Amino acid sequence: MKTDFRPIGVFDSGIGGLTVLKTLALHFPEESFVYLGDTARLPYGSKSPETIRKYSEQLMDALIKKNVKALVIACNSASSQVHEHSYKNIPVYNVILPGAKTALHETKKNSVVVLGTRATIQSHAYLKQLQLLNPTVQVLEIPCPLFVPLAEEGLGNDPITELMVRKYLSVIDTTKSDVVIMGCTHYPILKSTFAKIYPELNFVDSGNAIANWLDEDFAKGSLGRNTLAAEDINKHSQRTLQIFTTDASDHFNQLALQILHPLCGQIETIDL
Amino acid sequence: MKTDFRPIGVFDSGIGGLTVLKTLALHFPEESFVYLGDTARLPYGSKSPETIRKYSEQLMDALIKKNVKALVIACNSASSQVHEHSYKNIPVYNVILPGAKTALHETKKNSVVVLGTRATIQSHAYLKQLQLLNPTVQVLEIPCPLFVPLAEEGLGNDPITELMVRKYLSVIDTTKSDVVIMGCTHYPILKSTFAKIYPELNFVDSGNAIANWLDEDFAKGSLGRNTLAAEDINKHSQRTLQIFTTDASDHFNQLALQILHPLCGQIETIDL
Repeated sequence: MKTDFRPIGVFDSGIGGLTVLKTLALHFPEESFVYLGDTARLPYGSKSPETIRKYSEQLMDALIKKNVKALVIACNSASSQVHEHSYKNIPVYNVILPGAKTALHETKKNSVVVLGTRATIQSHAYLKQLQLLNPTVQVLEIPCPLFVPLAEEGLGNDPITELMVRKYLSVIDTTKSDVVIMGCTHYPILKSTFAKIYPELNFVDSGNAIANWLDEDFAKGSLGRNTLAAEDINKHSQRTLQIFTTDASDHFNQLALQILHPLCGQIETIDL
Repeated sequence: MKTDFRPIGVFDSGIGGLTVLKTLALHFPEESFVYLGDTARLPYGSKSPETIRKYSEQLMDALIKKNVKALVIACNSASSQVHEHSYKNIPVYNVILPGAKTALHETKKNSVVVLGTRATIQSHAYLKQLQLLNPTVQVLEIPCPLFVPLAEEGLGNDPITELMVRKYLSVIDTTKSDVVIMGCTHYPILKSTFAKIYPELNFVDSGNAIANWLDEDFAKGSLGRNTLAAEDINKHSQRTLQIFTTDASDHFNQLALQILHPLCGQIETIDL
């Protein structure tokens, strides 16, 4: 088994990617993580492809300076603009491929719905990936731009969110579709409302999908694990979770800790 | 009368400030304007004071390069962090002072409500300004973070916006308060919904308040007008409206033209 003590880098336009960090940190309790949320410039969903690409490169460069062994793009808007599987020799894991794979695996009706920000939907990143993996799949894409601000306001279970869910998702024909990709890392915060209104649909979470992909690469040895021989255990401290944002905001810090709970992390500000 | 052919610079974190530009451009049909919307980095409302200040200076520097004779801060979050009345020798007009003055002039109950983004409300910029002008005034401040995304999604008259208006404004005691400052330049887009639900309240629009302030300074001669002697009229072309954003987004461009209607403007992208 290959060993690599370096942390895994995870980034997002804001704090939505913390839903992915949390899933990964619980799934890989021995791995260290560095999270970088671009809270100063969020949201990415309404920005142009060129700007999203430029900002994503700045975030990846900042994480590479933190000596990460892998880059996880916990942001669908960024994933739809970063197509390469390695950047400056560091492997890149986006949310599109594992989300698409999981959805195709789960659907019994060969029909997948994709929810996302305007940028993600306009990029057709999921549509292209789904059709590449299965040219016969039926895909319905729905832009849901208000879900991010609702999640960020802590209104995940509010009647207003229920109204928005009904508004955006009412175009789904539940006799034809059974699987819905939550194509934005904020959306798991709203998952209980999705499931309450549409109990017949299966909502795919990108965090779990990425964890499976990392598991495969750890098993293949293309990525080294932070595992220690018994005699080395005392040489290294416990795994660490470092969280950086590009802006110091009490509101986001509070919400970040709520999302991460029961995990703990210290939030620091970084200038890009 | 002092003459100055240079345009007036107007800036905002995004396109909300176009409500102010429109009011000013209709009020001063002879003046030229340069608008700069920082759409790449919006919204400012959730950012820290330091970041808002830094971004505001970058926007003012960019407008000064465009040779403006005045800087109008059509953004409450930015206004609450830029307190000076001139920047690099160019006069600065913020939305706080004229909004507060108008509200105090209009209230018959000596009681003013302020609606704003989280950053504007946390800065207490309106509260401080109102109390400076009238130490006995009663002030109720209400943070309304979801109004900006609702306005930007074109949902100004949607039932979801009505629900949000009821949610945020239900704390107002209409027997005690009569005037409400729309403390965010996006909010005039929602004004018809405000007025429908609370017909007994008077909603103050910052665009009109700034126009009155500029009128005073034109009259005093502290600001020069773009007026021409009859013999010069053919030497100069008509007034111009130039609109720059920091990101090229079809969605924002479309919404921008809707807000500006019936005025016309060409939208260009600028790199800061």
